[in-house]
Order: sequence, then C-alpha cells, then structure tokens
Amino acid sequence: MHNDTICAISTAQGGAIGVIRVSGPIAIEATSRLFSPISGKSLKERRNFSLTFGKIFSDEGEIIDEVLVSIFRAPHSYTGEDSVEISCHGSSYILQRVLQLLIGQGCRLAEPGEYTQRAFLNGKMDLSQAEAVADVITSSSAATHRLAMNQMRGGFSRELSALRDKLLHLTSLMELELDFSDHEELEFADRTELSQIADEIEQVISRLANSFSVGNALKNGVPVAIIGETNAGKSTLLNALLNEEKAIVSDVHGTTRDVIEDTINLHGTTFRFIDTAGIRQTTDVVESIGIERTFQKIDQADIVLWMIDADNSALKISHSALKTELLSRLEGKNLIILFNKCDKVSPEHLAEWEATFADVNAPKLFLSAKHRQGVDELETLLVKTAALPEISQSDVIVTNVRHYEALTHALDSIHRVQNGLQMNLSGDFVSQDLRECIHHLSDIVGEMSSDSVLQNIFRHFCIGK
Amino acid sequence: MHNDTICAISTAQGGAIGVIRVSGPIAIEATSRLFSPISGKSLKERRNFSLTFGKIFSDEGEIIDEVLVSIFRAPHSYTGEDSVEISCHGSSYILQRVLQLLIGQGCRLAEPGEYTQRAFLNGKMDLSQAEAVADVITSSSAATHRLAMNQMRGGFSRELSALRDKLLHLTSLMELELDFSDHEELEFADRTELSQIADEIEQVISRLANSFSVGNALKNGVPVAIIGETNAGKSTLLNALLNEEKAIVSDVHGTTRDVIEDTINLHGTTFRFIDTAGIRQTTDVVESIGIERTFQKIDQADIVLWMIDADNSALKISHSALKTELLSRLEGKNLIILFNKCDKVSPEHLAEWEATFADVNAPKLFLSAKHRQGVDELETLLVKTAALPEISQSDVIVTNVRHYEALTHALDSIHRVQNGLQMNLSGDFVSQDLRECIHHLSDIVGEMSSDSVLQNIFRHFCIGK
Repeated sequence: MHNDTICAISTAQGGAIGVIRVSGPIAIEATSRLFSPISGKSLKERRNFSLTFGKIFSDEGEIIDEVLVSIFRAPHSYTGEDSVEISCHGSSYILQRVLQLLIGQGCRLAEPGEYTQRAFLNGKMDLSQAEAVADVITSSSAATHRLAMNQMRGGFSRELSALRDKLLHLTSLMELELDFSDHEELEFADRTELSQIADEIEQVISRLANSFSVGNALKNGVPVAIIGETNAGKSTLLNALLNEEKAIVSDVHGTTRDVIEDTINLHGTTFRFIDTAGIRQTTDVVESIGIERTFQKIDQADIVLWMIDADNSALKISHSALKTELLSRLEGKNLIILFNKCDKVSPEHLAEWEATFADVNAPKLFLSAKHRQGVDELETLLVKTAALPEISQSDVIVTNVRHYEALTHALDSIHRVQNGLQMNLSGDFVSQDLRECIHHLSDIVGEMSSDSVLQNIFRHFCIGK
Repeated sequence: MHNDTICAISTAQGGAIGVIRVSGPIAIEATSRLFSPISGKSLKERRNFSLTFGKIFSDEGEIIDEVLVSIFRAPHSYTGEDSVEISCHGSSYILQRVLQLLIGQGCRLAEPGEYTQRAFLNGKMDLSQAEAVADVITSSSAATHRLAMNQMRGGFSRELSALRDKLLHLTSLMELELDFSDHEELEFADRTELSQIADEIEQVISRLANSFSVGNALKNGVPVAIIGETNAGKSTLLNALLNEEKAIVSDVHGTTRDVIEDTINLHGTTFRFIDTAGIRQTTDVVESIGIERTFQKIDQADIVLWMIDADNSALKISHSALKTELLSRLEGKNLIILFNKCDKVSPEHLAEWEATFADVNAPKLFLSAKHRQGVDELETLLVKTAALPEISQSDVIVTNVRHYEALTHALDSIHRVQNGLQMNLSGDFVSQDLRECIHHLSDIVGEMSSDSVLQNIFRHFCIGK
C-alpha cells in the first residue's frame, strides 16, 4: 500500500460534468475537510458505495461548487485503496480549484496511469489486465473493443496461467529426474512423455505469438502500401478512400514526397494506408529518399496496391522491365494491380494493359480514382484480401508488442527445451530453459517487472486513469 | 413531468472516465435491463444515492463495459425525475454503444441543456438559476465563477423576489385607492407615500441594470480598442500583450484589415482587445471599410488606446489636425495615448511629441511594443483604468444580456409609474405600468416564459447538461 494520496481530473476538458479522483490513505479525510453535505451525516460516516450531495468550500469559506461525492473504502475500490470521486460542474476553473484544495490537504497530483498502476500493485489486476485498461479506453471498433475487454477481464491471464501450470508440471518432472538420477532402479516419466508436454506448451505459445499479426492488424490497421509511378493517381485514390483531402493532390510529377499514413475503416476492417513517393528514376535527392522509403514501406505492408497510369502507354514497355524488379520485392505480399484513369482510355488499350500483366498472378482492377469508379470494388477486394477473422469476446489474441516480444522469447526457450529433450541433453540444461520460458511468461502479467518497465508502461496512460 | 426519458454523454470526449446521464420515468428500468451487478441486489432494489458496480451487456450478451451506476429517484435528483448516471471507461466506442442500448430500451438522445431545462420545468430552479449553470461551467476566472455561483444558488432570484414583493405591495395600495376612490371619506396612503415606495423600487432596479456594465466587463472582458495610424505597431502591441502571434504583423502599411478580437487576463482583470485597421486616408475600398469599422469599434470600447508611431515625425503636424476629430469621438471613453517605437527616437523628439499632445488630458506612455518596453506599465495602467470592483460571492451583479434587457424594460415601466404618481395620473394608468414592471421581472426568473424563449436559452447549453 502507498503512503501518499493522489488526485487528478479523470475526465476530458470541456464537458458538462468533470470528475476528480482521489485515492490513498487520506482520500476520504482530505475530501471531507473541503466538503459539507447538504444534509445528514458527514462524509466519513457515509456508507461504502454511497453518493453524497454537498458543497466544496475554499479555505476562505467560499463555495467552489455543488458536487456529488462517491465513497469507496479499501479494498473495495478500483485502486484497492480508500478512494473518493468528486463529480463537479465541468468548469476547468472549478476543477483546478478543487485540485488545489486537495493538494492543500496533503494530496498530490497523480502521474499518468497511476490509479491503474496502484490497482496493479495492490493486486486488483495483473499487468496485462492493467495494460488492457488503456486499450479499452482507446478502442474504436467492435473488434478492438472485444479484444481489450477480454484481456482486461483476465482472458489472456487465464491462458497464461494454464500455460505456467503446464510448465511448472514439466519442471517438477525434470527436477524429479535430476534429484533421483543416481537411483537407476527408479522409473521416471520418460523423455518421450516430457517431449509431448513440451510440444503441447510450444503449440499454445506459438499460437499466441502468431495471433499478434491479426491482433496488430486489428489494433493498428492492416498495413497497405500504395505504390506506382509518380502521377499514377495514388494520392487521388487515397483521398477517394479517405473521402477527404489528407494527401496533397497535384498534376506535377512527384508531389507526394512525405510518406503519409492514414487509417480508414472499410466495412468493419481497419486499414492503415501508406501513401508513398512515386517509383521513377530521378536525380532529385529528396525524391530519391522518398523512393527508397517506398521500397522500405513494402516490407511493412500486408497488402500492396500497384497503381498504374493506364493513360500513359509509354509505360507499357518500361513496366515490362519494372515488373520483374518489383515482383521480386513483393514475395509473400498480397498484390493487387490497379489500372487507373480508365475513364480516359479506350477498351482496346485496357486489353493491351491486361495482356502486359497476364503473367502476374494477382487480382487486377480497372478504375478511375478521380471519378470514384471501381473504388467500391477495390474496398470489397481489400476486405476480402485482409481476411481478418471475426472476433468473439472469448478469443485470446495478442495485441501488445511487449507481450508479443515476451512470447517470442518464451517460444525460443521452449524450442530449446524441445531440442534438449530430443537430443537427450542433461536435465540441468533443459531445466534452465524451462525456467527462462516461465520467466518470460511471468513478465507479461508483471510478476517480477522492474520499476522501469512499469514506468514505461504507465507513462503512456492518460492522467486520471 | 415529462413522459419521455432522455440520455446523453455528459463528459467531454477523450478522458479516462466517461459519464452517461439518463433522466425520466424509465431511467432506472431501462438501465437495469442492460446492467448486471457484480453482486447483490438488482439496480431497481438499490437505495437512493447508491453506487452499484457491474457490467453493461449488449442485446447479444456481449460485455460492453464494467461500470459504476448511480441511482437518483424523483424528486431527489438534478432534474427532479428518476435519474441514473453510468460511469464508463472513457472510450467513445463504449459510450456510443451504451447510448445505443439505452435508445434501444426506449430512451431518446437529450437536446442541448435538456437536463437543466427539465430541472427548471420541474421547479428545481428558476430560469435565472438555470442560465447560471451554463455560466458556472464556462467561468474561467475567480470573479466570473463567484457571480455565476451566486446566481446559480439563487442570490439574484432572492433579490428579484424582494423587488416583486415591494411591487405587489405598491400595486395593492394602488388598487385599494381605485376600489374605494368614490368613498371620499376614506383615507388612503397618499401619493407621496406611494412615490416613496416607487423610488425605492426604482433604485434597486436601476442598481441591478447598471451593474451589467461591470458584469459584462467581468464576463466578456473590458472592451479596449487599439486605434492609430497604419504601421503604428498596434498588432505588435497586441502580440506583446497576448504573448503570442494572433494578429498578423508586417512592415507593409495597412496589413491588419480584419478586426481581430482577443481576450487576455492581466493581473486578474479580463480585457477584450479590439485590434483595428489603421486610421489613415486611403482610396483602398477594403481598407476604408476597415477604418469605418475602427470608428464603430470605438463606440463599443470602455478604454481606447491611441497608438502613435513616434518614429514618424511627419505625423506630428497631421496629428494636430486628426486630434480634434478623434477626441470628439472619444467623449466618455478612457483614453490612453501611447507613443510607440521609442527605442528609435531621441529624447528631444519624444519631448516634442509630448508637447504636441500637452492639451489632451489623458495618461501618456512611451513604449516599444517590439522590445516589450513599457508594456508592463501599460498593463498596470489598464487594470487601474478598468477599475473593476472586487467581487464577493454575495454580490448580485447582472451578467446576462437577457436579464439586462428585462431590467431595462422594468426600469422604463417604473419610471412611468414614478411620473404617473408625480403627475397625479389616474390609478388605472399607474397600475398598468406597475403590472408591466412585474411582468418584466418575472421574465427573468422564467415564470411565464414562452417555449421559444426557453428554446433559445437552452440551445446554447452543451449536450449532457
């Protein structure tokens, strides 16, 4: 338990209501010194989970506001400590004054995420649950909300706990073998049996680690790179998809030099669009950097839209050559070829274009980004290509990079365990790897996390949470 | 009482906590259908002013959030109706989902200010108190907060109520005179006595109406016009006062064509600065309009800063002429003369400038807006000139234009009453004016306000209040 009492405004500025949270040993005492109920018992005599209407007074006896005060006594509060919530009129002047008065009574301003950090440190939730609180607050779609809610409610923690039990079971079997290895007459679980258990563990960790690509796509959007020669209409397409002018559109070649990223929700799937500089030979230094970045961006993308100016027939020849180079960089990506500006091009020319790319095994779409022709078809194709699974609230899917990294480390460890068992290595070595695996999984729920790890996690929270 | 139940998000978007308010006959029933408490009694069985922790479920049985629900039963709530407050995680996705679910249960979205409007219509507060709720929320200084808080708590209403009692007393005396005027043998309060009561009433209404100039200055800032020839440095001064670049500053004459207003708090007093186009002869149509606006703005200002480019000695002659014209327009205003760009001018020249304006009875300051020389002195002088009184929480000062207008009408009526009594007019006439006076005062507290008046008042509120 903490000795100091923290206070913060927990609502955003500008609403009709503003809420101040106070948590710590003097939370109720400090508030009651500022507060006079309209009628009835003093704040300290009020029952748990009760609301009291009354006035907040300044030290000079001036009425600062008429407020509702909620009382939560340890351990029945969010933080597990004595806590108070003061619901004020949403005036920043009033909220600041009340904070000042609380500080005058010995409270201090809370750090970002400090309420949730205290909830974690007081055992109200584990670290992965605490992290999910921030995800719940920022979730903006049904899928991300479901994942965050399940994680906050301990779905992921339960899976990790089951994993740990299995690992501990395996460890104890290994250690039994070690302790009695001199006694050749004793029978132990044989290595095949141990390997079986290790394989089961590996499968679960592997599934969790692999779920991150889906989790990350859901949380941050499926990364889509739009590439193509300059002036092919990449920015226009992006605008058509975004339905607003976020990228610079111009008729001058090579306008889009900065890599612009934007997130857009198409039929329930979130995409993170990466608009890139055009890929043409250039002597312009700035533009060369842009083109190099284009190629780097391809690596980060799941889906690559190759956009071609169908109105520029000079490109047909050069593209035959460019094709080979580009395709070599697109291995493992979902490629979609877009012939743009089709409103300006005759059907014969379009057929020629199609023939030029006949050998490329990828969906091809004819469109006019400017007139929004074919854009709806593209949206449908994108959602189909992303092929994200329907998420239910019981699915455990990793969305947090920190968790993914810990799982990757755990996976390395369990792979070493599997190898050790197969190669009949000494139980000492194998046990060491098992302990490492447990350690990495424990990191996720924060059982042995250092102060600096915690600080790094909670400083990304907002103040008042 | 209303038949429908309203719901709205009462907090601003983006905080750690978001609060949804529900008010009306089915508020508790509708919420309880979405809500499952973690333990204990159902929501409907909970006591008044209690908090219940539990989960909000969607129609499909999905957990939308873990929330705290507050219960308020009529008439012990803000609106006077059955009410519920749902404290959720501050995710706009969650808040929207909960709203949708409430609407699915038969609630409807609240209009701006509808909670406060219901509180007024249900007799929880009068109209002037309801209006003060919005002022409390937007108050940004100690003085405006004090005035709004006093008004919300009924300070103004009590004063109006006392006034009305006096007016009714006077009316009854007048009517007594009317009813028995045939009976010459009966003695009534004589006209002198009636006049005395009317004078007392007039003094109170007059004081309240006059307080508006202070109330308006406190609420919206003391209006200060900065005038002067183009390029005198008006925008630079404004920026020095604002400490940021809100006005366009340039070396080209006549840059500031738009009238820019900005509010700044100097040593506790709020000023509303009016930056104006330069006053020089010009053939530029746009600029002529700007100059005309400059003169219009002078009428609205309490304080006029006349800024002179001391570095431009050609102005000394023209200003002698301009002086007379300008001064004629400045009657009743607090004028301060500023000689700017003093860093560039010799002491002899400054003395000449001073001599040119020796006949103008106004404070004169030498400054360099660009180098912030003399700006602190100007700030002190402005606060001294504004001379706003210290506000205590028991002061009744009118801050609302609607109230001011009603008071002005009431003042007209009582003046007619006074005249009527002095001129010994028939009681019929005087009574008519008395009733009008009462009517205007009743308008302030909303006793007979029409729907359109109410609509106009509450549509300026935020949603959720």
